[in-house]
Amino acid sequence: MSALRFPNLPPSEPQGSDLLAQERANTTFSIHEVSTFLYGEVYLERQERLLPMIENEPAFDKSNRYFRGRTERFAAALRKDHALVKLSKEFKWSPDEYLHAESLIDEAGPFGLHRGMFMPTLASQSTDEQLERFLRPAQRYEIIGCYAQTELGHGSNVQGIETTATYIPETNQFELHTPYLTASKWWIGGLGKAANHAVVMARLITNGKDYGPHALCVPIRSMEDHTLLPGVMAGDIGPKFGYNTTDNGCMWFDHYRVPHISLLAKYSSVKPGSGEYVKPPNAKLSYGTMVLVRASLVGAARHGMAKAVTIATRYSAIRRQFVDKDAPKSLGKQIVETPVLDYSTQQYRLFPIIAAAYACFFTSKEMMRLYHLNMKNMETGDFSLLADVHASSSGLKSLTTTMAASAIEECRRACGGHGFSVFSGLPLLLQDYVPNVTWEGDNYMITQQTGRYLFKSFRELVAKRTSGKFSANQINNPTLAYMNTYLENPTLKCPATSASQFHNPELQLAAFGHRAASLVAQIVHALDVKKRTWNSMLVDIYNVSVAHCQLIMVQNFILGIRGEMPQPEGVQPTVLSAASKEALTDLSDLFAMHTIHKQPGEFLTSGYLDAKQISLLGEAVMNVMEKKVRPNAIGFVDAFAFPDYLLNSAIGAFDGRAYERYTEMATREPLNKTEVVEGYEQYIRPYTNPRGLKGHLLQARI
Amino acid sequence: MSALRFPNLPPSEPQGSDLLAQERANTTFSIHEVSTFLYGEVYLERQERLLPMIENEPAFDKSNRYFRGRTERFAAALRKDHALVKLSKEFKWSPDEYLHAESLIDEAGPFGLHRGMFMPTLASQSTDEQLERFLRPAQRYEIIGCYAQTELGHGSNVQGIETTATYIPETNQFELHTPYLTASKWWIGGLGKAANHAVVMARLITNGKDYGPHALCVPIRSMEDHTLLPGVMAGDIGPKFGYNTTDNGCMWFDHYRVPHISLLAKYSSVKPGSGEYVKPPNAKLSYGTMVLVRASLVGAARHGMAKAVTIATRYSAIRRQFVDKDAPKSLGKQIVETPVLDYSTQQYRLFPIIAAAYACFFTSKEMMRLYHLNMKNMETGDFSLLADVHASSSGLKSLTTTMAASAIEECRRACGGHGFSVFSGLPLLLQDYVPNVTWEGDNYMITQQTGRYLFKSFRELVAKRTSGKFSANQINNPTLAYMNTYLENPTLKCPATSASQFHNPELQLAAFGHRAASLVAQIVHALDVKKRTWNSMLVDIYNVSVAHCQLIMVQNFILGIRGEMPQPEGVQPTVLSAASKEALTDLSDLFAMHTIHKQPGEFLTSGYLDAKQISLLGEAVMNVMEKKVRPNAIGFVDAFAFPDYLLNSAIGAFDGRAYERYTEMATREPLNKTEVVEGYEQYIRPYTNPRGLKGHLLQARI
Repeated sequence: MSALRFPNLPPSEPQGSDLLAQERANTTFSIHEVSTFLYGEVYLERQERLLPMIENEPAFDKSNRYFRGRTERFAAALRKDHALVKLSKEFKWSPDEYLHAESLIDEAGPFGLHRGMFMPTLASQSTDEQLERFLRPAQRYEIIGCYAQTELGHGSNVQGIETTATYIPETNQFELHTPYLTASKWWIGGLGKAANHAVVMARLITNGKDYGPHALCVPIRSMEDHTLLPGVMAGDIGPKFGYNTTDNGCMWFDHYRVPHISLLAKYSSVKPGSGEYVKPPNAKLSYGTMVLVRASLVGAARHGMAKAVTIATRYSAIRRQFVDKDAPKSLGKQIVETPVLDYSTQQYRLFPIIAAAYACFFTSKEMMRLYHLNMKNMETGDFSLLADVHASSSGLKSLTTTMAASAIEECRRACGGHGFSVFSGLPLLLQDYVPNVTWEGDNYMITQQTGRYLFKSFRELVAKRTSGKFSANQINNPTLAYMNTYLENPTLKCPATSASQFHNPELQLAAFGHRAASLVAQIVHALDVKKRTWNSMLVDIYNVSVAHCQLIMVQNFILGIRGEMPQPEGVQPTVLSAASKEALTDLSDLFAMHTIHKQPGEFLTSGYLDAKQISLLGEAVMNVMEKKVRPNAIGFVDAFAFPDYLLNSAIGAFDGRAYERYTEMATREPLNKTEVVEGYEQYIRPYTNPRGLKGHLLQARI
Repeated sequence: MSALRFPNLPPSEPQGSDLLAQERANTTFSIHEVSTFLYGEVYLERQERLLPMIENEPAFDKSNRYFRGRTERFAAALRKDHALVKLSKEFKWSPDEYLHAESLIDEAGPFGLHRGMFMPTLASQSTDEQLERFLRPAQRYEIIGCYAQTELGHGSNVQGIETTATYIPETNQFELHTPYLTASKWWIGGLGKAANHAVVMARLITNGKDYGPHALCVPIRSMEDHTLLPGVMAGDIGPKFGYNTTDNGCMWFDHYRVPHISLLAKYSSVKPGSGEYVKPPNAKLSYGTMVLVRASLVGAARHGMAKAVTIATRYSAIRRQFVDKDAPKSLGKQIVETPVLDYSTQQYRLFPIIAAAYACFFTSKEMMRLYHLNMKNMETGDFSLLADVHASSSGLKSLTTTMAASAIEECRRACGGHGFSVFSGLPLLLQDYVPNVTWEGDNYMITQQTGRYLFKSFRELVAKRTSGKFSANQINNPTLAYMNTYLENPTLKCPATSASQFHNPELQLAAFGHRAASLVAQIVHALDVKKRTWNSMLVDIYNVSVAHCQLIMVQNFILGIRGEMPQPEGVQPTVLSAASKEALTDLSDLFAMHTIHKQPGEFLTSGYLDAKQISLLGEAVMNVMEKKVRPNAIGFVDAFAFPDYLLNSAIGAFDGRAYERYTEMATREPLNKTEVVEGYEQYIRPYTNPRGLKGHLLQARI
């Protein structure tokens, strides 16, 4: 019970619910059609089916989520993960159903990495015996595992990890050991408190030789009572910016012996007794998984941005501040303040994020298609797609997660003060999202992989062209295509002479292609001719990866709306109605044009665009936002189809009752349980009423 | 006591302490000299004197700060504020000493706004009687107050607030009332739980006429027992992204009557009985205070950036990852990994932030000088400085706080995974810093004030020049000077033909001046000739404010190092040694050149720079970072003189023992108090050992 009772007052007119209803009435396309285009009917139907079940499970209740300290949050998350497993067993959920439920509950938990990393690693690296011994009980949750790779001193450079696993032929065991403090396993999700097993990455040493990192599956806590096993020390690494519902853990081994079967031996192994090392086959196979993880992060970037911009856009349609003197709004006879969504700065902050979320959708879909196609090809020994897909997935992971992290924070700030309240939903969203820019390859570092591929492709193309035996038929991927176009005419100029011409998709693609290729050419020249060191070029390499990946995103967006994207085998492209196509084309135009307008430098230095054109482009951006995107803004975010339960936002709910929800949430703040704060007697009264005076005596004193 | 015992292992070689010692030995300037230049001897001496006293006060102990949930954090902050007042009374601290202590403790608390807003408002707006009645007891902390302006529905637009204060002639009282939910007072620091008085901004209504917002000082909680007074309802608004040690509150009035003396009446008043309204004098006087607040935020931006970059730079000198193949590092005969600070991307992320922090230092100093000069002038009726100072302070508040918020987050990310740990000190720093971009004028919105002034100045200058009676003598401020230079030759081109020429400060200033003036010219043309609406130009207006303020910062940096900044009356400029001057000039060059390099678009479209020059500039940036800033990086951040107690960072402490401190902090995590997690029996054992089996039986089962 709260001591804070708030008055039963309505917000002043106009009401948020009326405003959002009006916005929806103005939408020029079918919101349901676009939702279906994005997710498919199966997904939407599943969401409708799962949602009530999840909302009604007490362990998944979100009403106290924002009030808990770390200890309580972890306890609630453990309860939640237990209930999730229970429900999934009870209703025999498919993996898709499980993932969908997890995404609606939207809270990392102690069992998350068991499913996300421990089991997949076992599945891909185990022998049959190991599958039986480790994976089967893991599927039943008898074994709960974590994936212990990162160390206190080594994250990005996995080859540099220091934990050792030394083969002991006498007992046919491996001895795990932590030689330095920097070799402490660190950041391992689920290790802190929950897991009883771990896949440990350690340097394999046998017969005195170090074979580098290998995976071992080992017990760490007693199956009987969950105490740590002798030789293992582990615990939680403490509070974090986000993810405080997960027990990221640390671990040290003190000459800890494990049986021979612990070394996951599908690809490489150690022969019992002799300790002879058996080498793995083609290492390229492991790149496939990396592509999958990075492609899925592009999808997660879409999800994060879309949630944030749904909240910020809805609230900006409700929130009014100042009167735009050139275009005052009225309600009846009275002038009322202008919704902040009508200000061009607010549009410039939010609408490109809406567009970017849609852009990520198309590119994540295409990356998943390419991943599956490449995996299929590799099974038949065809590695031709791998390099391009791996390079793009690295650069796109870097680009889209950086975009999403900035976008979420921009949405938070665009809600003014109320974006600072946890009740807006935005702070926690940001805090839980930002690790994406660091994990699975730091966003600056991994762009080197994209760069290397681009430079190699460019050098080969130039060599072919100068060999005299070149024909355009040799161009077998889009990367070579844009590079070749550039090489055909490196001084090509944009023909645009009016703002409207920037809506031409061919022109947009030409601008992005010319800019990316010209950056590649400059860097290759610096490396090969000027002999600049790789390290000195890292900033340029980061920039060229961004340029390449922005081109990919623009391209996929354009083709996706047209229904011209290649489809997975057997899948027919969805055909959009003219109204939806037009609305999405506005977003595609905005995405391309705003990306140039925000950072025009390289488009100018590449020589493709000039100052006059940048100015025209600016007009086109402002125009498409005001005239085309503004009327559909609420429709665009509604089409993301996020239930209120998922958003858990006082100011971003579907019905527009922002201020009512917000005040109601405040009454539940634990500090409001008492009218007079704990600590008053000790810390306030000694100053304000030291002698315990009563009413009129006090009045006389001050 | 923690159940987590970590092994007594050293990090692998080389040790952080040796690395930082080596860095310090390489520094080319005297760190103490630069510290003294920045802060003055008085400040540094005071810090040394206060620090032990503060570190030894149990209420200021930071060792548990990172583990507390919101309720405990607020309780600790209340205790802390109580102790701070006690100590300040006991030692008769001067305001400077108080502020310095507060800054070292570095935690907002429930009494913060009492000192920061409540008392200053009383001081500036009270009659003598009100000073006696309100301010004196406030100074003794008998009254503890807050400043209640913001409402649920109104922040930026103060003129739109909805709370009313209606004069009741019959009883000579004012009646405070909350007519709508949106009129709820919201975000008011100290109101939630601590304050017993409030300065309330409400629409003054007398004789049926609404005179807009006025300030009233009213009691809200009983002086006897701290319960809410009848007619007042108040409470805490709940958890926030940061500032959770403060009780930001909400409040509603239900026809709450207060005596006539409550209306702060120094400038405007209501005559008792007749209710006649007495108008305030020149409203311009209040702009002075706004300038002070915004100028002080420029200083706070410096502080925030400097703290973050101290942590990130020190840790980057310790943290090693991968081997730079072109320049491998060795320790004895062994190749060791490269410190991440040697990678050019890490330098590009951090060094411009070091430079920006120094840049803010010079500009904040100059803004304070201008504030005092302007206040002095205004007292004599001279308002000539006001417009320029007000415009610059608005734009600089926007620019520097946006820079600092991005910089802190960039530093956090640049620490890789460990920047995500609260122990790094960076998450809390960011969370407590970011409200700066919203409060005291939203960073997008307030740039309109800068824009208006620039356009007015430009129009007047153009009019003068075309009048035929213009002479350069009429140029009496730097803003007109750069505009006039531009108008003399709008097609001026940069003469640079080599990278080194960008180190020329005159060339840097010319580039920034030409770009700012050309943007002003474009916008004035769009508004006046093309008749574009103000709203449609807001993005351009934001950009022109950035351009103008970046010029100011570059200018102050250059003049500041030269010792050519105007000084407050009676103050002699400090003369720097040649070594320090050279080192700071590297930072000044980096600040100017990197600012262009990062966002070259407008420098290109203004016509001053071309593509070839941007490429040369890029070389100059990379070169100055690698050759000049890198060897002094640790020296530059050491010169900020932040004690470890202030930084409270596991990875950013002075001695470089990052991994040792980090592991030690983790052992104190509350979840580590028990070896087996609470909740095991209920949520884990049912899956892992449902039948309570013992050791060998379990082995057989899985």
